[in-house]
Amino acid sequence: MGCLNVGVVGTGLIGGSIALAGIRAGYRVFVYESGGSAVHTILGQAIRATDLANLAESSDLVFIATPISVITDIAKTLASGIRPGSLVSDVASVKGPVFRALSEIFGQRCFYIPSHPMAGSEKSGLEAARVNLFEGAVTLLCPDACPDQSALERLSQFWKRAGSSPLVLDVPTHDRLVAAVSHLPHLLAAILMLHATRSAPEGLSLSGGGFRDSTRIAAGSPDLWKEILLANRSDLLTNLYRYRGAVDEAIQILEANDAKRLQALLDAAKTNREKLSG
Amino acid sequence: MGCLNVGVVGTGLIGGSIALAGIRAGYRVFVYESGGSAVHTILGQAIRATDLANLAESSDLVFIATPISVITDIAKTLASGIRPGSLVSDVASVKGPVFRALSEIFGQRCFYIPSHPMAGSEKSGLEAARVNLFEGAVTLLCPDACPDQSALERLSQFWKRAGSSPLVLDVPTHDRLVAAVSHLPHLLAAILMLHATRSAPEGLSLSGGGFRDSTRIAAGSPDLWKEILLANRSDLLTNLYRYRGAVDEAIQILEANDAKRLQALLDAAKTNREKLSG
Repeated sequence: MGCLNVGVVGTGLIGGSIALAGIRAGYRVFVYESGGSAVHTILGQAIRATDLANLAESSDLVFIATPISVITDIAKTLASGIRPGSLVSDVASVKGPVFRALSEIFGQRCFYIPSHPMAGSEKSGLEAARVNLFEGAVTLLCPDACPDQSALERLSQFWKRAGSSPLVLDVPTHDRLVAAVSHLPHLLAAILMLHATRSAPEGLSLSGGGFRDSTRIAAGSPDLWKEILLANRSDLLTNLYRYRGAVDEAIQILEANDAKRLQALLDAAKTNREKLSG
Repeated sequence: MGCLNVGVVGTGLIGGSIALAGIRAGYRVFVYESGGSAVHTILGQAIRATDLANLAESSDLVFIATPISVITDIAKTLASGIRPGSLVSDVASVKGPVFRALSEIFGQRCFYIPSHPMAGSEKSGLEAARVNLFEGAVTLLCPDACPDQSALERLSQFWKRAGSSPLVLDVPTHDRLVAAVSHLPHLLAAILMLHATRSAPEGLSLSGGGFRDSTRIAAGSPDLWKEILLANRSDLLTNLYRYRGAVDEAIQILEANDAKRLQALLDAAKTNREKLSG
């Protein structure tokens, strides 16, 4: 593979962690952050690109790790400088709309394969970046618009060296699955937090670890998550309708004081949760 | 205070941790577990009572830490041996029905003040017991039927020495607050786990820390939690109805593609969650 040059645009939690993990894995890492002064200090061995064109020219593999709202503009600016044979990836949490825009921009110029590392934190920004953020996590790759196996292999290699397990799936499947296991849970954590605040404000200070774990991700960045939830609105709504049906089912069980059905519900949840841990 | 003798009936997660914390704090601790052979090994310095009458006679402070379904029977058997001036407490997660039964049994014989340490684990049983389980947690005390200040002081002392912060509130308030910050979150974790299993079974293996934290308590004991949820059915249903209203509100926001209201929802959740941590 030789010494692959990796460019990272956007050095928040995910982009910063990509840069750190890339440096550790032996890549030459170029970063670009408009006006980000903390970049040099935290990303000691990264090379600071002077602008997006410079980053594009210097990199064999470019990650766009900015908020969804600016990805398309960044991609357009990058596109003019990118070399044929280079590979571009993004790390957006929703693929559908991002994929449509970016495959149009990069499709004729270079390889484009979206990534989505299933790792994060309720904290955001470069200060929260960690070299081991991706260790043990799955990273989803969607090569829907890239039939080139060697490009996919290059991207997989990067994510493996960053400590994660790459998993290939298509864009619609990606958005459907993350709606269920990431976007819905995020919205529900926020809803539970607000419900408890309204219904039992004096109960918050006495809550235990269960409540704190259930609501941890409600502290995530509202700006980022608003974009994510709206970008995956259709799959999220499908999940919300089904979830509301499950809440209604639980309400019926309690109204009927039905110990047998409640036990079955809790048994099934425990069994499935324990499979998850293993 | 001298050397207070503390008896613990039921050596699961909570009872075992009470015994361990009591021993560490310098109390003489008597335990009773019908047929529990692991008791001696794990609770090295506890004294094993031969039966409930023997435990009642030996103890100035008795904790009943059994599942809700057997508390009343245990209490009746204990009552005959308990000394006037002794103090009985239970650690049930729901107070209403337990309090009514136990204050009738103990009211004329000795002091009775329910406790509820807001600490736990998705694991259960003596093997999960920890000497520091209660450290940093709040322990709720409900002296509704006990006007004796010195008895309350004795119980508070115990919980302080176990590392927790005692907080006094009445039984109806207790049940209302824990419905919101403990019982509802538990049921919702189970519902989310089942929803994801049904809607995106192939998504579970790629879920990240957010989903895992949100569903951790779904691995709790179905037998124990079925009892708890049903015993607090009325307060739990009140919470479920309101929570369903909040889910409906979120559905409307997404159906309307209303970025402003979604941002407001996520902002409020973040602000309140961050107060919780501090």
